[in-house]
Amino acid sequence: MSKNDLKNVSFEKVQLSEGFWKEKLKIHKQAVIPTCIANCETNTERINNFKRAAGKMEGDFQGIYYDDSDVYKALEGIAYSLAVQPDPELEQKADEWIDAIAAAQQEDGYLVCYFIMGVNGEPRWTDMERHEDYCLGHMIEGAIAYKHATGKDKFLQVAIRFADHFADVVGEGKKHWVTGHEELELALVKLYHETGNEKYLHLASWLLEERGHGYGVGNGIWGKADWGPKYAQDDKPVSEMTDIAGHAVRAMYLYCGLCDVAKETGNDSYLNSLNRLWDSTVLRNMYITGGIGSSRDNEGFTADYDLPNDTAYCETCAAVGMALWNNRMNLLHGDGKYADVVEKELYNGALSGVSLDGKKFFYVNPLFSDGTHHRQEWYGTACCPTQLSRFLPSVGGYLYAYDNTGIWVNQYISSTAKLHVDTADVEITQNGNFPWEGKVELSLRLTQEAFFELNLRLPGWCKEYRLSLNGREYLAPYEEKGYLKLYREWSDGDRVVLELSMPVEIVRAHPKVKNDEGMVAVTRGPLVYCAEEIDNQETFDTAVFTPDTTFTPKWEGDLLNGVMTVTAHTKAGELKLIPYYAWDNREASRMKVWIPFEE
Amino acid sequence: MSKNDLKNVSFEKVQLSEGFWKEKLKIHKQAVIPTCIANCETNTERINNFKRAAGKMEGDFQGIYYDDSDVYKALEGIAYSLAVQPDPELEQKADEWIDAIAAAQQEDGYLVCYFIMGVNGEPRWTDMERHEDYCLGHMIEGAIAYKHATGKDKFLQVAIRFADHFADVVGEGKKHWVTGHEELELALVKLYHETGNEKYLHLASWLLEERGHGYGVGNGIWGKADWGPKYAQDDKPVSEMTDIAGHAVRAMYLYCGLCDVAKETGNDSYLNSLNRLWDSTVLRNMYITGGIGSSRDNEGFTADYDLPNDTAYCETCAAVGMALWNNRMNLLHGDGKYADVVEKELYNGALSGVSLDGKKFFYVNPLFSDGTHHRQEWYGTACCPTQLSRFLPSVGGYLYAYDNTGIWVNQYISSTAKLHVDTADVEITQNGNFPWEGKVELSLRLTQEAFFELNLRLPGWCKEYRLSLNGREYLAPYEEKGYLKLYREWSDGDRVVLELSMPVEIVRAHPKVKNDEGMVAVTRGPLVYCAEEIDNQETFDTAVFTPDTTFTPKWEGDLLNGVMTVTAHTKAGELKLIPYYAWDNREASRMKVWIPFEE
Repeated sequence: MSKNDLKNVSFEKVQLSEGFWKEKLKIHKQAVIPTCIANCETNTERINNFKRAAGKMEGDFQGIYYDDSDVYKALEGIAYSLAVQPDPELEQKADEWIDAIAAAQQEDGYLVCYFIMGVNGEPRWTDMERHEDYCLGHMIEGAIAYKHATGKDKFLQVAIRFADHFADVVGEGKKHWVTGHEELELALVKLYHETGNEKYLHLASWLLEERGHGYGVGNGIWGKADWGPKYAQDDKPVSEMTDIAGHAVRAMYLYCGLCDVAKETGNDSYLNSLNRLWDSTVLRNMYITGGIGSSRDNEGFTADYDLPNDTAYCETCAAVGMALWNNRMNLLHGDGKYADVVEKELYNGALSGVSLDGKKFFYVNPLFSDGTHHRQEWYGTACCPTQLSRFLPSVGGYLYAYDNTGIWVNQYISSTAKLHVDTADVEITQNGNFPWEGKVELSLRLTQEAFFELNLRLPGWCKEYRLSLNGREYLAPYEEKGYLKLYREWSDGDRVVLELSMPVEIVRAHPKVKNDEGMVAVTRGPLVYCAEEIDNQETFDTAVFTPDTTFTPKWEGDLLNGVMTVTAHTKAGELKLIPYYAWDNREASRMKVWIPFEE
Repeated sequence: MSKNDLKNVSFEKVQLSEGFWKEKLKIHKQAVIPTCIANCETNTERINNFKRAAGKMEGDFQGIYYDDSDVYKALEGIAYSLAVQPDPELEQKADEWIDAIAAAQQEDGYLVCYFIMGVNGEPRWTDMERHEDYCLGHMIEGAIAYKHATGKDKFLQVAIRFADHFADVVGEGKKHWVTGHEELELALVKLYHETGNEKYLHLASWLLEERGHGYGVGNGIWGKADWGPKYAQDDKPVSEMTDIAGHAVRAMYLYCGLCDVAKETGNDSYLNSLNRLWDSTVLRNMYITGGIGSSRDNEGFTADYDLPNDTAYCETCAAVGMALWNNRMNLLHGDGKYADVVEKELYNGALSGVSLDGKKFFYVNPLFSDGTHHRQEWYGTACCPTQLSRFLPSVGGYLYAYDNTGIWVNQYISSTAKLHVDTADVEITQNGNFPWEGKVELSLRLTQEAFFELNLRLPGWCKEYRLSLNGREYLAPYEEKGYLKLYREWSDGDRVVLELSMPVEIVRAHPKVKNDEGMVAVTRGPLVYCAEEIDNQETFDTAVFTPDTTFTPKWEGDLLNGVMTVTAHTKAGELKLIPYYAWDNREASRMKVWIPFEE
């Protein structure tokens, strides 16, 4: 049986309950969205650029050529928020933005403000790095999200017109095109699913096949001496890729596009490329936080196992990209190891990108800070804030995968979800306290008995667990591909309790990572911990772990919106650790993830 | 870094020390080889057929058309034995056989006795099921083995002439050919490596590509109503295969051939087929003993999760085939899960194929016996005894994989091995008591310090372990793809001690296996256990396990050549379990692997 039939249960069908992630959704609504709105329409000219491009406002284009995409990503996040929590005022704001966007669309469907306004006389569709395709891609994603959330399809029609225009300009017998910042590929597959029109799938496929043959032209990348085609993963055909290289976010979106096309076509060479790339990325180039990208210079990769902690780039967008990609790999292969990476990003590398109050963001997520690295409300290149604005409200979509044989529980997040397995309607409720406690209670509501598989992900970090079924311990559940597999005739009211043991653990890096030689990191369940000097004036520089070091976890409800801290008892004194995602939410302070370890 | 560079350390470089497997090698030498010799030259006409085919003996062909292959497989086993333990008498016997074989070779290189002798007037190279290619394949394997063991290449020259003859008969522009019993593909890749002549690799590749297009003809398979092309995996092109089907041993050899060609060519569609087939085989169609093949009818497969215990076919040859195939998958992917399957066969499904004294063999390995199923000295179709005769002495070749970056320790077997990692000569010694105890001490001898990875397989059954390096506990070793990864500058005399916890475990089958519903099996480390009625007159039918059942392991040195037994304390009384490989070595007795379990 091919796992190519696995789909996510859409976040719209997953209602989060009180708990860690519901709090994040509240903060998203209360702070992240308003921050994005303010920074698109008031603090910057992003919205005004559309009005100017439409001839409805005076003045020149202001900003960077790809700024349109932030508006689309913000709209996507607004749409996801509206989908679960209607809000007429917010919807009205979005409609206003969409009207401004639509008004700027050219006769032929083209819509990139920078070029419409003729900045520097730059011609369209000439320099492939100018993010025109990138803007189209995010427009498509935002427009589909908005249609699903509100039923309104004005934005979608704009996106379709722009996509059709692009399809007229490039393609066989027309212009070559290598997407200078990959994104459009995955968006076109979404558009294919939305419209049923296969031409979008073919175009996505064509775009992937255009890469690696020397067709890429543009001053920003191909013409730039120290970057070259590798920066945008244009150095070899996608079927021949073996190692992650170049710009991290571009790589992530490219791999998403490969997954999406491979899922439709079963393309063997894509599947194998993806497997090689996953090993390269996760096994050789990923930080323990899930962050990727060791170099500021190309916002990407240097060499295998080169993972400096202080100069780690670990762009927030790329961590979110890792979640997007690994979720797709999970749907392709039905293997829990991919959902393990999604979990890692959810609780560490992506989550650290936003402050606890939702008002500030990291672009860069280092694993060591000298105390001068802080979140900001916005950036000139604002991809990271808007990325989180669309990622956070969609988190519910990562909980479950399903097909007509069963359900795969990928994330343990308190919620109620409705899904359909074969002929059975199933409502599955989770109650738990992740990431603080490893116990989760799942209960099923069914209108009638039904046979199906219930697959519970056994996280890679979990060494011990206990499972019970309707109150009785269930010994030795069958394990397969990282899941505990239960298959039986389920009845309304069936309850499963899974208790994942969550001791504090020390973890080593891959032994080839010289940057972490002689050091360990501390984890507990899915969380990676760090030490801030604020909590450790005496011991920040002197604490050393040994095999005898003991650790005491402690719930501190008043600290950092409530966290489990871990105190290490070392010879030099106590070292207090907090979850990495929560660092830089108090006064400026040095921070480190890797702690010296004496064998 | 591609794992396509991984190779095994040849068994010739691995000297087994006193212990479980060294004992098996002794029994192989003392009993299995003589049994094969006697049954090839005295008790049957296999050797005489060659003499008759050469015109050096009177009389008709006697036996089955594929009987030549048993001689080749026996010779292969003899060669492997000679490689580590020279024996002039045995070598002389082999040379006599080879002389008889060579004398039967026709002018054009052809050599299948049945057809040379014109049995029933059957023409050569017409009915693709007649095992002509199969005999050639085993000849090649035996001949290469003999050359490596003795330096003598007479047999190899015979094989090359026969292979070249076949290459003249079939191929592009010549005859289509679908190997009716796959084997030749993997043998041709061996011949390619042996001779450096690429034509053998191309021929192997061509043979694989011939499959699944309707070219197969022959009364024995394609013409047989209830078998059809699926029986010999000829129902679809190899690139499109998704599920294991048909005859089990054929499937195993086909998959070996696919691995071998894919390793040379990197063929993406082969790699993906193999991944799908592995899931199909191991996750949906394999017994807990590692046995495969649920049906006597086609000596193969019925449907996913259909695993009857009493009528399990589980041909010994197929269990060995699983080891051959999974070792190749390990070399392709560097993942310990494949070596886990090799281990499973070594200690269970393949090993049960031979009696403790080495004189009798199972063809069929059921998981339930009514007491009437027993090993025999030989069979009309003698593939299983000869399969074990070549498998057992080659076991040393499964211990290690290596490339120029490191060593992968795949099996824990007391031994000393010499290998070469990059520029370093390394001698690695293992001391342990597998499968009875989980502690293994590894020590390294080096002529000079060297950096390399030492990867220790963490078996899938192992939930807890302890590692120490030069006497000190080594906490939290990095785990990757089923291995504990140590990377450091190694010095002469370095010692690593790995202690794998080996409690008695109960195990469930995949919940869709109805045959095992309400039952559990007992394992301890790599061993699967069973109950024989001999030990359990009172409780064989009445013992039921519950979550409270306790188990007591006990070493019994005088039982079954020394085994750890496991006694289950149940309400009905004690149920004594022995390792599955050791069943049917005493008086006739009922036997079962799966025991009723009350939740």
